[in-house]
Amino acid sequence: MSGLTFASRDAHRRWLAEQARLPRGFRVGTATTDFVPVESGKPARMTVTVIAADAPTPDFGALFTRNAMPGAPVLVGRRRLDAPRLGAIVVNNKISNVCAPDGVEAVERTCACAAELLGVAAEEVLAASTGVIGWRLPLETILGTLPSAVASLQADSILPAAEGIVTTDLYPKVRRAAVGGGSVVGIAKGAGMIEPDLATMLVYLLTDVAVRRDTLRDVLRDAVDATFNCLSVDSDTSTSDTVVLLSSGQAGTAPASAFAAALHAVCADLAHDVVRNGEGVHHVVRVRVAGAPDGGVARGVAKAVVNSPLVQCAIAGNDPNVGRLVMAVGKWVGAHAPGLDLGALRITVGDRVVFERGAFRLDPAADATLVAHLRAAETYASVPPPDGLTFRPPIDFPPHERCVEIAIDLGRGTTEATVLGADRTHEYVTENADYRS
Amino acid sequence: MSGLTFASRDAHRRWLAEQARLPRGFRVGTATTDFVPVESGKPARMTVTVIAADAPTPDFGALFTRNAMPGAPVLVGRRRLDAPRLGAIVVNNKISNVCAPDGVEAVERTCACAAELLGVAAEEVLAASTGVIGWRLPLETILGTLPSAVASLQADSILPAAEGIVTTDLYPKVRRAAVGGGSVVGIAKGAGMIEPDLATMLVYLLTDVAVRRDTLRDVLRDAVDATFNCLSVDSDTSTSDTVVLLSSGQAGTAPASAFAAALHAVCADLAHDVVRNGEGVHHVVRVRVAGAPDGGVARGVAKAVVNSPLVQCAIAGNDPNVGRLVMAVGKWVGAHAPGLDLGALRITVGDRVVFERGAFRLDPAADATLVAHLRAAETYASVPPPDGLTFRPPIDFPPHERCVEIAIDLGRGTTEATVLGADRTHEYVTENADYRS
Repeated sequence: MSGLTFASRDAHRRWLAEQARLPRGFRVGTATTDFVPVESGKPARMTVTVIAADAPTPDFGALFTRNAMPGAPVLVGRRRLDAPRLGAIVVNNKISNVCAPDGVEAVERTCACAAELLGVAAEEVLAASTGVIGWRLPLETILGTLPSAVASLQADSILPAAEGIVTTDLYPKVRRAAVGGGSVVGIAKGAGMIEPDLATMLVYLLTDVAVRRDTLRDVLRDAVDATFNCLSVDSDTSTSDTVVLLSSGQAGTAPASAFAAALHAVCADLAHDVVRNGEGVHHVVRVRVAGAPDGGVARGVAKAVVNSPLVQCAIAGNDPNVGRLVMAVGKWVGAHAPGLDLGALRITVGDRVVFERGAFRLDPAADATLVAHLRAAETYASVPPPDGLTFRPPIDFPPHERCVEIAIDLGRGTTEATVLGADRTHEYVTENADYRS
Repeated sequence: MSGLTFASRDAHRRWLAEQARLPRGFRVGTATTDFVPVESGKPARMTVTVIAADAPTPDFGALFTRNAMPGAPVLVGRRRLDAPRLGAIVVNNKISNVCAPDGVEAVERTCACAAELLGVAAEEVLAASTGVIGWRLPLETILGTLPSAVASLQADSILPAAEGIVTTDLYPKVRRAAVGGGSVVGIAKGAGMIEPDLATMLVYLLTDVAVRRDTLRDVLRDAVDATFNCLSVDSDTSTSDTVVLLSSGQAGTAPASAFAAALHAVCADLAHDVVRNGEGVHHVVRVRVAGAPDGGVARGVAKAVVNSPLVQCAIAGNDPNVGRLVMAVGKWVGAHAPGLDLGALRITVGDRVVFERGAFRLDPAADATLVAHLRAAETYASVPPPDGLTFRPPIDFPPHERCVEIAIDLGRGTTEATVLGADRTHEYVTENADYRS
């Protein structure tokens, strides 16, 4: 995240196109089709996305959701980790594949079909499905669409894939970092049901830098833990969260630390993008907790703040209701670390200290400063909807990357954590009150 | 909760007046005043409520929030538990007293002032404050209002107190149960910041049945654990949660089990009232988890379902998105009981099985049945606001007591838990985006 601003959708799209140049050794194709889910009986549209390596590579890694009701692609994907090589990824949106009858078989048949079209082995293909949970995957529709997706494969841009995997996302998310003689490029899908637990939404990372499988998996785990595992849009952990990293090796090697730094940068940027483009998000909230006795406390307190519905709603309204920050800290500590003395608690919003030495520091002047900080971090305000009820975001690009900055010092140790969260708005309620239609 | 329906506000008020007859040995008074909080500089209104026993009683008990940043009244209240007798309770609304400079002194001075007016000892008075966190208590305003509140004391009805302690509540909450030759009558304040943790919002319970202090405190703890500790409006745990029970003993004794049952009934009814009158609540959701290996799993799974923002929003929209129920169960089990096999999971909504043997059971006919169940449990639908943004509930009484009924059988034990929760609506967002104004 680098303090970018975008004056228009076109400016954002031009920047995305530049980010989206594919590393050497990969191709991307998509195809879109209409179908009718049997459970709803209403017309729907689905995109099938294919990401293919020019040659299957042993150097890949993946992390999956810890949700105890994982989708069939996650079950199959975990087995793929033991496969000698990975050559392609197939993703469909609109319907996920969770606890559906014959869900695993649907994954295997999708992989086999893609493998045949690409000339690789079925176990070299990883599949993912994202969208409504509870409906069955329209397998024949997917199999019928795959040839068109494969026919459209091109080696220039990952942007079609970034656009193909989205559901409620307002805009595609692509980030890149240069490293050695090559690059790391990643895309992310995700706008709701997002509090990743040791994995994340759908994230695909490609590099042409040569990194051996063991190193690659270690570096990926570290990067994910520090980025996607430190964000929450709505505290709900998806059944389909998946992060995959593939190396084609075509750009030769780079120092391990440089590669790790590049991967971390791409993951951190995508994590920020995922929150900023979260369902109904007006404000991204960055909570830095310092002075914690351990990482569990630091992250727990930070997540309690970003996941508090009352904190979220106050921020949505540009209302600096800092009493709720203290409530959220006390809620988590009371429930999870009741012995921790909060006598040294210090809270800053923007540059302003709002709580220290056991007392609030508030007056009308402080209030005005805090309101200004909140307003500056707002990406858009709600627009009254034509029907009075159905709120839709008025923008489809991120105008800036500013955050509401909340710093919490517990004064009881040296451990820190930073977590990204978001506000709670009418647009989120509208989006999720009738998501399946 | 007894399946009541109310055709109008007047019908509800008539029923409340009947519920509100005071047990023998207690009087209630209130007074309202205007003032200007120094932090906002804007006019506000506060009610001071006094609940007085005719004679200070040794037979009382109280439970307080586990939030680690408790308000000063909670700090003082914990000390009162060791006092020989309790004679009165003083409550102010609009502003809470959390981490304010001289907060404890403000409590002590309020208690001393009330004690002098009532002719009891200061340590026989318990104080509570509820409302905005972070502002200072207007102590002089409270002290100046107390004489009027005491002058208005009457022995007929607890209704003035039920009306005096509210903040964002739409209507007062009063419940009673007859037992022995007397009764238990309770009132509750609470509409937001409500996921009690071994205590609850503000609840005051009065009885004229004679119950000795030790027994009274045991019975109170059990009743609270089974009622207020099994609900969540918004997963946020207040800094001021307090439950108090006083016995005047004027109606003589009753069998311990009969008293416990009466107290449980009043607490369960008030818990239901608190959720139904939760901020912006359209649907009360009752989740019964059975087949759990222990109580922690049963309650954890149930709370994960009612606290899922995506489940909440779907229910608000009468959208039976049952995939999100499975997500929420899997989220909690994955994070907190990863070894638990969910292969026997069975979920029912209303009378309809929606998930069993690892698969969803959904079709358009099932969908219609589920939508009808959700609509029947709705208390009101959002009304498009005049300004397009500021949603206000169109009712100020509970038209019925129906719930969205979700039953989850884990098939892995014999423990059960029932938790009450609510949906998430535009009215909640509006209420909490600018609560302090």
